[in-house]
Amino acid sequence: MEAIGKKVWVIAEGYIPGDNPEKEKEFISHETACILNTSEKDAQIELTVFYSDREPAGPFIIQVPARRTRHMRFNDLQNPEAIPRDTDYSSVFKSNVPVVIQHSRLDSRKAETALLTTMAYSG
Amino acid sequence: MEAIGKKVWVIAEGYIPGDNPEKEKEFISHETACILNTSEKDAQIELTVFYSDREPAGPFIIQVPARRTRHMRFNDLQNPEAIPRDTDYSSVFKSNVPVVIQHSRLDSRKAETALLTTMAYSG
Amino acid sequence: MEAIGKKVWVIAEGYIPGDNPEKEKEFISHETACILNTSEKDAQIELTVFYSDREPAGPFIIQVPARRTRHMRFNDLQNPEAIPRDTDYSSVFKSNVPVVIQHSRLDSRKAETALLTTMAYSG
Amino acid sequence: MEAIGKKVWVIAEGYIPGDNPEKEKEFISHETACILNTSEKDAQIELTVFYSDREPAGPFIIQVPARRTRHMRFNDLQNPEAIPRDTDYSSVFKSNVPVVIQHSRLDSRKAETALLTTMAYSG
Repeated sequence: MEAIGKKVWVIAEGYIPGDNPEKEKEFISHETACILNTSEKDAQIELTVFYSDREPAGPFIIQVPARRTRHMRFNDLQNPEAIPRDTDYSSVFKSNVPVVIQHSRLDSRKAETALLTTMAYSG
Repeated sequence: MEAIGKKVWVIAEGYIPGDNPEKEKEFISHETACILNTSEKDAQIELTVFYSDREPAGPFIIQVPARRTRHMRFNDLQNPEAIPRDTDYSSVFKSNVPVVIQHSRLDSRKAETALLTTMAYSG
Repeated sequence: MEAIGKKVWVIAEGYIPGDNPEKEKEFISHETACILNTSEKDAQIELTVFYSDREPAGPFIIQVPARRTRHMRFNDLQNPEAIPRDTDYSSVFKSNVPVVIQHSRLDSRKAETALLTTMAYSG
Repeated sequence: MEAIGKKVWVIAEGYIPGDNPEKEKEFISHETACILNTSEKDAQIELTVFYSDREPAGPFIIQVPARRTRHMRFNDLQNPEAIPRDTDYSSVFKSNVPVVIQHSRLDSRKAETALLTTMAYSG
């Protein structure tokens, strides 16, 4: 299978709510980048996070093995720094092989969950 | 009418919740690929499902007659295997004729439903 | 201003819930195609609706004046026929001038509303 | 880093609910355009708002500094005029440098929130 996708992707919307009344991990509010690597080579992806009032952070290094998907939670990023809660941000992904990236968020600040998703923009 | 669309489509986000408190079929949590075949020829589509920790599964064979739409529920796939619940996956569709594919999910784990949708990525 | 967009658009996902417990018009479940015509010429758009088990219906004629937007509810279509409720469908739009089309749905079958949106596919 | 994106973007869907039972700012119903400027130059963006029954309004001037994101709420626009509530509209953005724009809405007319998002259309 030939690798499908692009090497540069952008998610302009980013926001992790700070308030998490839910206890179970699957219902904690989270932002996710779903990354599919259809290639025969492991993907090494550099993620840069942009803010409204400071210089960009990163690169964060994300690995997605050959022929695998990874649903990466922004909540879990720690190195070189964590993403602050209740803060607007945007993301730029640069990969060494073509990948496809889709953005989704589960918001559980209220009792019921809200969901959103969109394909990222391929630069 | 000339056939509209592409022959390769990707949905990077995939997740079927395992818990289904709802009884009516229309309110059971489900992931759907809405496939439109505007061509004059029946579409034969090979679906490959990618996981985070094992080799891809498939191909699943999906047929969409000429000038028809099909809202295919991932929940219903059985051959060559079912999609496991509560598991991250991604999907790649390869068709013999141009089609258009849109992704949607209805999530009813909570009392209220949540919806999401996006156009798939055309490779 | 030069006209922005394309002349052919596809929304693969379509479904109008039949059950509408809500009384106010703004909260009745509905599918919408938001059509922007930035051109200096009135847009004449032919909409064809595709089903899973019968020949396509249409064309429905939709007019969007020059420099205007129209948020067209599929619920309101009557000519040449209405869209049946609780039925899967897809839509193809063909315009005489470039337009931009975005799909959205408000679902109020449960007490709380659910929303989805995506840009249509430009063929 | 080379600037990513396009200079012309369209969001065909626009609607700010007029009823806001929520008190906290983060839960007031709002439409947002998330704009990422990865370039080394400040972005000067002209926004034109299209309506269904009158001539377009604008331009509204939006600034996004170099290497910054801005999550711009349509609710906050005042100059040359405010966006009326409970009114259908569409948006066209023209930037002097490439940017990426994503659309989102939080709807809190009911007790629970609903979310939607999609990448804008790049003209």
